[in-house]
Amino acid sequence: MRELNIGIIGTKFMGRLHSHVWKNLSSFFDLPFKPRLLYACGRDASSLASFSEKWGWEKHSLEWRDLAACKDVDVLDICTPPNLHYPLSMAGIREGKHILCEKPLAMNASEGREMAEAARDRGIVHYVNHNYRRCPAVVLAKEIISSGKLGRVLHWRGVYMNCNLLDPALPIGWNMVKDIAGSGPLSALNSHSVDLARYLVGEIASVSAVNRVIVPERPVKGGGTGKVTTEDASCMVVEFENGAIGSFDTSRFASGRKNYNSFEIYGSRGSLAFNFERMNELQYHSEDDPPETQGFRTINVSESFHPYMTAWWPHGHPIGYEHTFFHAFTDFIQAVDGNKKIKPDFYDGWRGMQFIDAALKAGETGARVYLKAAER
Amino acid sequence: MRELNIGIIGTKFMGRLHSHVWKNLSSFFDLPFKPRLLYACGRDASSLASFSEKWGWEKHSLEWRDLAACKDVDVLDICTPPNLHYPLSMAGIREGKHILCEKPLAMNASEGREMAEAARDRGIVHYVNHNYRRCPAVVLAKEIISSGKLGRVLHWRGVYMNCNLLDPALPIGWNMVKDIAGSGPLSALNSHSVDLARYLVGEIASVSAVNRVIVPERPVKGGGTGKVTTEDASCMVVEFENGAIGSFDTSRFASGRKNYNSFEIYGSRGSLAFNFERMNELQYHSEDDPPETQGFRTINVSESFHPYMTAWWPHGHPIGYEHTFFHAFTDFIQAVDGNKKIKPDFYDGWRGMQFIDAALKAGETGARVYLKAAER
Amino acid sequence: MRELNIGIIGTKFMGRLHSHVWKNLSSFFDLPFKPRLLYACGRDASSLASFSEKWGWEKHSLEWRDLAACKDVDVLDICTPPNLHYPLSMAGIREGKHILCEKPLAMNASEGREMAEAARDRGIVHYVNHNYRRCPAVVLAKEIISSGKLGRVLHWRGVYMNCNLLDPALPIGWNMVKDIAGSGPLSALNSHSVDLARYLVGEIASVSAVNRVIVPERPVKGGGTGKVTTEDASCMVVEFENGAIGSFDTSRFASGRKNYNSFEIYGSRGSLAFNFERMNELQYHSEDDPPETQGFRTINVSESFHPYMTAWWPHGHPIGYEHTFFHAFTDFIQAVDGNKKIKPDFYDGWRGMQFIDAALKAGETGARVYLKAAER
Amino acid sequence: MRELNIGIIGTKFMGRLHSHVWKNLSSFFDLPFKPRLLYACGRDASSLASFSEKWGWEKHSLEWRDLAACKDVDVLDICTPPNLHYPLSMAGIREGKHILCEKPLAMNASEGREMAEAARDRGIVHYVNHNYRRCPAVVLAKEIISSGKLGRVLHWRGVYMNCNLLDPALPIGWNMVKDIAGSGPLSALNSHSVDLARYLVGEIASVSAVNRVIVPERPVKGGGTGKVTTEDASCMVVEFENGAIGSFDTSRFASGRKNYNSFEIYGSRGSLAFNFERMNELQYHSEDDPPETQGFRTINVSESFHPYMTAWWPHGHPIGYEHTFFHAFTDFIQAVDGNKKIKPDFYDGWRGMQFIDAALKAGETGARVYLKAAER
Repeated sequence: MRELNIGIIGTKFMGRLHSHVWKNLSSFFDLPFKPRLLYACGRDASSLASFSEKWGWEKHSLEWRDLAACKDVDVLDICTPPNLHYPLSMAGIREGKHILCEKPLAMNASEGREMAEAARDRGIVHYVNHNYRRCPAVVLAKEIISSGKLGRVLHWRGVYMNCNLLDPALPIGWNMVKDIAGSGPLSALNSHSVDLARYLVGEIASVSAVNRVIVPERPVKGGGTGKVTTEDASCMVVEFENGAIGSFDTSRFASGRKNYNSFEIYGSRGSLAFNFERMNELQYHSEDDPPETQGFRTINVSESFHPYMTAWWPHGHPIGYEHTFFHAFTDFIQAVDGNKKIKPDFYDGWRGMQFIDAALKAGETGARVYLKAAER
Repeated sequence: MRELNIGIIGTKFMGRLHSHVWKNLSSFFDLPFKPRLLYACGRDASSLASFSEKWGWEKHSLEWRDLAACKDVDVLDICTPPNLHYPLSMAGIREGKHILCEKPLAMNASEGREMAEAARDRGIVHYVNHNYRRCPAVVLAKEIISSGKLGRVLHWRGVYMNCNLLDPALPIGWNMVKDIAGSGPLSALNSHSVDLARYLVGEIASVSAVNRVIVPERPVKGGGTGKVTTEDASCMVVEFENGAIGSFDTSRFASGRKNYNSFEIYGSRGSLAFNFERMNELQYHSEDDPPETQGFRTINVSESFHPYMTAWWPHGHPIGYEHTFFHAFTDFIQAVDGNKKIKPDFYDGWRGMQFIDAALKAGETGARVYLKAAER
Repeated sequence: MRELNIGIIGTKFMGRLHSHVWKNLSSFFDLPFKPRLLYACGRDASSLASFSEKWGWEKHSLEWRDLAACKDVDVLDICTPPNLHYPLSMAGIREGKHILCEKPLAMNASEGREMAEAARDRGIVHYVNHNYRRCPAVVLAKEIISSGKLGRVLHWRGVYMNCNLLDPALPIGWNMVKDIAGSGPLSALNSHSVDLARYLVGEIASVSAVNRVIVPERPVKGGGTGKVTTEDASCMVVEFENGAIGSFDTSRFASGRKNYNSFEIYGSRGSLAFNFERMNELQYHSEDDPPETQGFRTINVSESFHPYMTAWWPHGHPIGYEHTFFHAFTDFIQAVDGNKKIKPDFYDGWRGMQFIDAALKAGETGARVYLKAAER
Repeated sequence: MRELNIGIIGTKFMGRLHSHVWKNLSSFFDLPFKPRLLYACGRDASSLASFSEKWGWEKHSLEWRDLAACKDVDVLDICTPPNLHYPLSMAGIREGKHILCEKPLAMNASEGREMAEAARDRGIVHYVNHNYRRCPAVVLAKEIISSGKLGRVLHWRGVYMNCNLLDPALPIGWNMVKDIAGSGPLSALNSHSVDLARYLVGEIASVSAVNRVIVPERPVKGGGTGKVTTEDASCMVVEFENGAIGSFDTSRFASGRKNYNSFEIYGSRGSLAFNFERMNELQYHSEDDPPETQGFRTINVSESFHPYMTAWWPHGHPIGYEHTFFHAFTDFIQAVDGNKKIKPDFYDGWRGMQFIDAALKAGETGARVYLKAAER
């Protein structure tokens, strides 16, 4: 089988998970290419070596800036903090590499726009990894909406919360530093929720917001304290271009919430609800059911005819978080074969950054901020 | 036992329910007064007569405007649409009657302010019936927050939705007419949610909103179509005076939601969740539980030591919607005995109206609207 | 309106609840007779007096044995412990009174048979108050099964547990004394579950069982300890006459269960699940739904077209435990009008006692015990 | 790193899943040996070849009977239907191979006993793959029980149902043939539930049962119909040696249940509930919580300090079915290092077979069947 040479940058949570997926993808999915774990880059020599050995990367290097220029690499897999997405992607685009980039796409809409336009102009395959789009329950939600069973979508309620920063004694990490992370939960969590809203409901036309820093100062590893430069929580209301309205809540201070990526969608003929903490389930209510027995159905999305599920186990045997990555990466490889589009791409990533910029501005000014339609 | 003479105006849903409660209250609660169902007023002669007979009102009259002046009446119970709350209350206040008024208090903040100030100045007992405050699970939530177990409250998510107007063939009713209802779900539903937020979190400092009319024109009973003059759905974000932030979603177009009055509250030491459709339950998560076994507890709020529950059945035997009214009315009668305060009162109703005015203005202008602190 | 004179024996939990229902029934349901709270009997003079006054019983007497002979009484309402059900009912039958008897019907099948045959022969209206049959969600379950939507019923899982006796320091009460209560949770709890199984699935043909006394000795009020003479928990498996199989679990030692009266029913075309702790909901799964969106529906059984619900509040406004009694008592009064049958009657009560006898015997002997078909 | 040479027999569901785990285990867990996918055996030449290639087995052969004798193989991994577990295991034991055998261990207790005794005498590491023991939520349940937090365990309710055979047009498969499968859901499903009961509660002393064939005749692939020789559903009640009682329900005719492996455990100080369809959650109720806020906690078992979870993703990122196999196989390899015991072993498998034999006999005879204590 033809091989697709992967070069990865980043060896932490996402680096590990991407490695696992590249390594095993062809065991579960019929692919036009077999991914080859060719080149791994990182910043720390010893962890990079053990990472490469553990996952079977053939070569590894600390010269991560040079990976884009490496002739053998077909796909650049960017698993770094957000501040490196732009320079690494732009380098990759220049070299004509296909790019799989972790989310959020960039530090702001301006970077995002440049990346999207450059990727489009260079003709590469580009993908930003909002993996939740490929949770089977979410794809089923999309199919239900696309089929018209929900009628006209009227109302979105999105929430993405965890409790990760609840402890004020937790030292500052890169994800609380604006210059590295771009923003706080707006980038880390809510960008996923916005991507789901755009996928399932449509483009967002405007946003109003309140943002809060809850613990403004934290210990610094090594001693002393430092300032948190990202927001800790946000509440937003939006108008969609198609007339629907909606809200988003995001926080890293939500006691008891571990990965509470949840939504409710109300349409004129039915409604949907989803919570990633119960990722194998979709709630669906239909006005077309007989009135006496209408109710929210808890669909166990695990049948072989459900999206992507034929690759896995018999019904009722839950899949987990990592499987959403398998689904995304198989679609990515299909897209590379024939240079097709895959969504969400850098255009979507740019739209996502537009939203973050607007939400931050709306929070500061108190005014509703309108998002400009972006050219594709 | 001393009696308390009740005069009621309104014979529909709320009229029936209030009658049931007045009639049975003393069987379940020890009261300083026994309510006497003295005087019932309505606008339709035949339904008024059967209403009075069914519930045992001693007298009835179509001259509802005169009830306030009726010497024997101690308590004016106002169960009319919102547009009559102001004139009826003001008449009652002038006559020194105690007033139990259905929600929302008024048509706007200006009416509400006048009512609150007049009631305060006249020294009557005044109460606006946001009955959900006296759902035992909600009182337990309040006790948890007041005890400090939740730490500092950081984030509120409120929603109140139903599906009542989903059918576009449904004719216009008074609750879609601005001049009678004041507003749509902002008055009918979300005013309850705002009252709960004020009760559990604190005063609201600002609001941003988007409001929508979804079905702008509907059939009119008798023929033709007419314009819906109230909003159909709203999304709001708020700042609380204490620094917490939050969101509200409300709609009468939410397929599958029957009386979805639900909230989540996140504090620095724990969190709470509630849904009135499962009114006997409260969800509670505590950071003080041992880490390995932390999780949201589903508290079945039915023990004899839970708020108000000693009056009812053994644990695990659910109470229903009407019981929240029993709890409110027993507190009201306790307040009348000794002319004490009961909350929420007309001041709270006024604050609620402020919020609605602000949310409507915020929706129109796109600007965050700050609520002025009201003098008590 | 014609009146129906009620005589009640018993002033505790059931006495209170029945009084409330008799008093208010005609406000919510159109009845051929208005219940008149005529005569209350009890064993304790002071509590009887306050009971009568609180609920408005016109007369009261300590001579409860004579109530059956009281000319004015039309309906004998028996709210005593089980050991008095037989003598009181037999006396009432002799006098031709209609009888509403609390559950379980009797102390054993022999008593039950005599009661059922005497009641049948005398031609009175007789009803044993397995109230859960008239929970709207349960009636909806019955309608779904009767309509054929579940296909052939194959499997029943019933459970009825609470935690009432978990504390070993709790003194012995009448409900732990075999000579008063007949048996433990088999009578107090599981008899309801058996009644639901007979209602929803069909007659039970055989039972195997294990029974346990968990705390055999307890404090006696006043001093010393005494022996618990009833079982504390039981597990049973059954065959139904129609070929279905099933299990029952019952206990008063189930930590966290308050009134866990729950069942699952599996048929060849669908299935149902119910838990009284969420009594306004029914779970329903149908093989007739489109495969991709099949799932258990949580039906909020609160629409005006749901069983009995037109009498109450708008959809989504929960009803509670006591409402099941309203539904039963309205049907009872309808039956009295025209001397019609109402189910479950003393025949059903007898079958229920047969089951308890058989379960106790099965537990002792280790053998499967077959229930003899009872003549109607 | 030292390698451990695996030889596998079976290429279907379990073959695929075991391969995936052997291949990836060392990426997630620190192991004393790295598993080497050495030898794969099956019965069909073409599917065996593609299986071997897909998963990276170095060698493959149709002579599966000879695998046990293959010098290089350290571990025999038996993924065949039950009828081959005995001959393959006995061959492996003779050759001194360590054995990982799929469940149920054998066709009956007699085979099981022989296997357990031979394995013990030969001193190999032996394991029967009741993988659900190593679901993190189940291990947490075990820890809670072992710590004494549940007090004395009183009552078990187990259920394992799916809907796999609901369609009567489904042709007969090997899992409905007694000579291949041993029994129906008693082997396929309930054996897991019994293993969990033995793990969490203790040894089972007696069982009473009813068993049913629901669809006795089915189409045969190729034409005609044949007789189903295994039961389709069973209900059982048990006594545990420690005095607890319990019930089991199992069926492959449960509409809407996909992999409904669920239990409730009631103890004198608390209780637990688990459903594998929500495998990342454990329900826990504790009498030690403050009374006002007692309730079942939904523990999201995904913290790094939860059993096995440090190997996976951050909290709130669900793991799936296959991860339970990772946990089992890592423990198996740890046991091989130093020839330690791992549970459940062939002794446990034998006890499980005893139970099935007893349940079948109890169903036939109607008598309670006592399980003989097995020597270890």
